[in-house]
Amino acid sequence: MARTQPTVTELIEGARQRNPRALGRLITLIENNSPRLREAMELMAPDTGRAHVVGITGSPGVGKSTSTSALVTELRARGQRVGVLAVDPSSPFSGGAVLGDRIRMQKHALDREVYIRSMATRGHLGGLSSAAPQALRVFDVAGFDTVLVETVGVGQSEVEITRTADTVLVLNAPGMGDGIQAAKAGILEIADIFVVNKADRDGTQALVRELRNMVALATLGPDDWKPPIVKTVASEGTGISELVDLIQQHRVHAERSSAWQARRLERARAEVEALALGNVRQRFIRNGQQRVEAIAADVRDGRTDPYTAADVILEDL
Amino acid sequence: MARTQPTVTELIEGARQRNPRALGRLITLIENNSPRLREAMELMAPDTGRAHVVGITGSPGVGKSTSTSALVTELRARGQRVGVLAVDPSSPFSGGAVLGDRIRMQKHALDREVYIRSMATRGHLGGLSSAAPQALRVFDVAGFDTVLVETVGVGQSEVEITRTADTVLVLNAPGMGDGIQAAKAGILEIADIFVVNKADRDGTQALVRELRNMVALATLGPDDWKPPIVKTVASEGTGISELVDLIQQHRVHAERSSAWQARRLERARAEVEALALGNVRQRFIRNGQQRVEAIAADVRDGRTDPYTAADVILEDL
Repeated sequence: MARTQPTVTELIEGARQRNPRALGRLITLIENNSPRLREAMELMAPDTGRAHVVGITGSPGVGKSTSTSALVTELRARGQRVGVLAVDPSSPFSGGAVLGDRIRMQKHALDREVYIRSMATRGHLGGLSSAAPQALRVFDVAGFDTVLVETVGVGQSEVEITRTADTVLVLNAPGMGDGIQAAKAGILEIADIFVVNKADRDGTQALVRELRNMVALATLGPDDWKPPIVKTVASEGTGISELVDLIQQHRVHAERSSAWQARRLERARAEVEALALGNVRQRFIRNGQQRVEAIAADVRDGRTDPYTAADVILEDL
Repeated sequence: MARTQPTVTELIEGARQRNPRALGRLITLIENNSPRLREAMELMAPDTGRAHVVGITGSPGVGKSTSTSALVTELRARGQRVGVLAVDPSSPFSGGAVLGDRIRMQKHALDREVYIRSMATRGHLGGLSSAAPQALRVFDVAGFDTVLVETVGVGQSEVEITRTADTVLVLNAPGMGDGIQAAKAGILEIADIFVVNKADRDGTQALVRELRNMVALATLGPDDWKPPIVKTVASEGTGISELVDLIQQHRVHAERSSAWQARRLERARAEVEALALGNVRQRFIRNGQQRVEAIAADVRDGRTDPYTAADVILEDL
């Protein structure tokens, strides 16, 4: 006998009880741009925005996953329910999110008040920009107090996602070569808190000084928050309690100003715009992939320019 | 007396002579999404696709800039004209491309047959996806034989750009921590040639073995090309001649199959689609930022769901 597929309503009911299978299935609906996604989002809309979303970013190798795991431990010790969303740039070919992070997180695996999920967004209508806010809604429904969103700190879409977290941690580590690497990616400007991880290594003081100079030179945002710099050794849990204190302080500070609501407005705006543009892109495809390819071939071979080609495609809509 | 601004026709004439100021100004038009860009693209369309575009990608710290510089030296020694386009993820705040790469390239600064340029794409209508192909057209007009496109190997848009290069080099280096990092970013699958840089370091053989196993397990693409693995020490020029030989071999192989034209078609398709979507986004903005923000506020506060909001925005068009 075939097993009946749970309805969207049943999945959401399961998510409210933090049933890991229900949470996982809802996020899979998002990854696959399921036709049932719309119904799910309609039902979950009223829960939007309940969790404190903490973005964790930095170059590969600075210790993002180890820090995330240490933060989970500390937040749990303070009685919070904690979600983790690991947003990997999706592979254009395999589409798979790698399990590495989840392996690192195994010690939290039996704790029902913790839910950890990697997400690939290859099939999603609006890409990362709308898939991430949608996944956050699943965590909101489940009543997690804090959701840690881990992203690789490079890439346009990834920076955009991180930017709309309520509190943004930018991780650095000494001895990663060029200090310029992080500046390149445009992630320094989005930091609410700077974390110098692996702070038992040589070069820590120099890195702290460099960050301090940068913060001193920067223009403060509309909320007048001056990003603090905290040293951690995440693998040993050192500095993590202080970091969580700073995260809470940032929340209190941001909620007092207009910054909190402004950033959440920006998150919703980016989500809606990405969905609308994804919708337009789908129409391109429906209106005949062949037609688009014929025009693209003209551009490739220099018979027309890209602007004229774009006009032709838009007229077809 | 005010100096007269050169016309687009004059700029393109200058670019044909590889005048660095003219080349720079054309790329600035692209970065700034200048109203004169359309005219420039119309005039440059017939030159599209002349250069061999070599994408160079990998995680921060693997030695992309050093390798790029070494490749420039080798290609110049072989009598080629070489362009370099360093595509940095644009900062959402400062918008600036950092000068670090250009500093590393100083030794090529006086060579008129080499042109090196970083590009930020913050203001561009179609983002990175159309700005990069447009910049390549400037290099085509100038008659460069090979254009090296250096990207950070993480991020959706960045992977997309790299994927449409004629030949894709994926750089790795031993001792960068987790071998999984590169796989995560989805860049291993797009490699035509694997480069193990810093091959004088411990861990080189293990990394080569790991890559070899991966290549052995992978399904070959439509062009039946099996990505070779080459060891380099770019800072000393070691292995660079062999790498250039492999780049040429890949070109010959790809041109014999349908892969060459297919990848260039994909580059044109992505460019045109990005411009068309950028055009739609501009209409959102023209149709009233206030209206979009009001809808986004409804989504933020859970009064509506993002799909309904996207429908409303599209109806407004």
